[in-house]
Amino acid sequence: MKQIKFRREHGLFVAEGPKIVEELLAANYRIDTVYATEDWIEEKKEKFAQKFAEFIRISPKELERISKLNTPNKVLAVCRLPERDLQEISNPEGILLALDDIRDPGNMGTIMRTADWFGVNNIICSNDCVDAFNPKVVQSSMGSLARVKVYYTDLETYISESKVPVYATVLDGSSIWESSADKGIFLIGNETRGISPEILRHATHRISIPSAGSGAESLNAAVATGIVLAAVKRVGTM
Amino acid sequence: MKQIKFRREHGLFVAEGPKIVEELLAANYRIDTVYATEDWIEEKKEKFAQKFAEFIRISPKELERISKLNTPNKVLAVCRLPERDLQEISNPEGILLALDDIRDPGNMGTIMRTADWFGVNNIICSNDCVDAFNPKVVQSSMGSLARVKVYYTDLETYISESKVPVYATVLDGSSIWESSADKGIFLIGNETRGISPEILRHATHRISIPSAGSGAESLNAAVATGIVLAAVKRVGTM
Repeated sequence: MKQIKFRREHGLFVAEGPKIVEELLAANYRIDTVYATEDWIEEKKEKFAQKFAEFIRISPKELERISKLNTPNKVLAVCRLPERDLQEISNPEGILLALDDIRDPGNMGTIMRTADWFGVNNIICSNDCVDAFNPKVVQSSMGSLARVKVYYTDLETYISESKVPVYATVLDGSSIWESSADKGIFLIGNETRGISPEILRHATHRISIPSAGSGAESLNAAVATGIVLAAVKRVGTM
Repeated sequence: MKQIKFRREHGLFVAEGPKIVEELLAANYRIDTVYATEDWIEEKKEKFAQKFAEFIRISPKELERISKLNTPNKVLAVCRLPERDLQEISNPEGILLALDDIRDPGNMGTIMRTADWFGVNNIICSNDCVDAFNPKVVQSSMGSLARVKVYYTDLETYISESKVPVYATVLDGSSIWESSADKGIFLIGNETRGISPEILRHATHRISIPSAGSGAESLNAAVATGIVLAAVKRVGTM
């Protein structure tokens, strides 16, 4: 079940734990099967009766056998991969987050969670980003997967054809604190190599998070995303 | 080697990979043994000749056997745990980061890297935080371990006796954008439970990162640390 090939062939992914499964149920994700322990079913069946009727009762031992978590947690859902079409982006005039070659599942999930916190509902990923339905991404998104839509595309083509400002987060741009950017596409690059030159040349602006210059060469990609979105979103609140 | 007990009994920890080992060597960490492949030794022995003479040459196969990494990377160092005394904090009047019960090694390492980026050199941890010399912390700190000093203490006592402002990062405080805080102790809490009530009651201020209110219940602890430090550090740069 861990394999991207399996997910794409069968159109399914797995989510685990009460928080994530409940948010997917609440968000009307298409869910094939929910395996859960008796206590979870007893507590939740009424709440979700309208959405899902046939929870499959399993013992904690059985859950342990099918779970990918170190500490299995009451419920596991097999869900349908949503179909995403870039044309359907609801608010292309607002803030879009674009990720170039983000490889670490923990970073991807944390970036989804961070985008959700700041009300950014659409993330456009280069085709070489880690799969957003990888189990580690699903778990580290902490349920934000239920609200944030992730699209995979040829990011260079997408950025080059964009009609909105494109802000690239780089090490030698102008300070985010001097920018009054409050909409457009915000680009975050690979954990090691940053944004690829092919994509970077289509950016209209280069922004940076000022460092104290004391030693660290870079920030973690999810931390950088959080700081950029916080800085952009602050404009309306000050 | 993974066990905290081993580290405390023997006073040793393990660091791997060229970036981290080279930063520890450059920072004058006390290093017991460096195991490295021939190519690394040939390339680096002159640079570090003053600091360390006796690199132990091993084959990639041997490195694979002693490494904890999925992809072992040229060099592994066995280092002495530094002795830390809270009295020696070099700049108690500046910014101190305080962590209450941070459990995830990846978060701890990323927080150290983020503090380093913003020039925050001292992190005070509650005794129940994950060990800063846990191999996963060492690796995710990306070398910042060589510059950022981490102290473990009874955080409640420390905070209660502090003479400087204490800013607690919580979900219902005043906006970080309305604060002009630029020094003091900045508190970050546990990944699930936040800051414990015993510590929170000693805080002089409560600050929050404004959310769009769209769904995510919280931010990742390292992302929150990054946004708080970025907001505090911006004060001087605007």
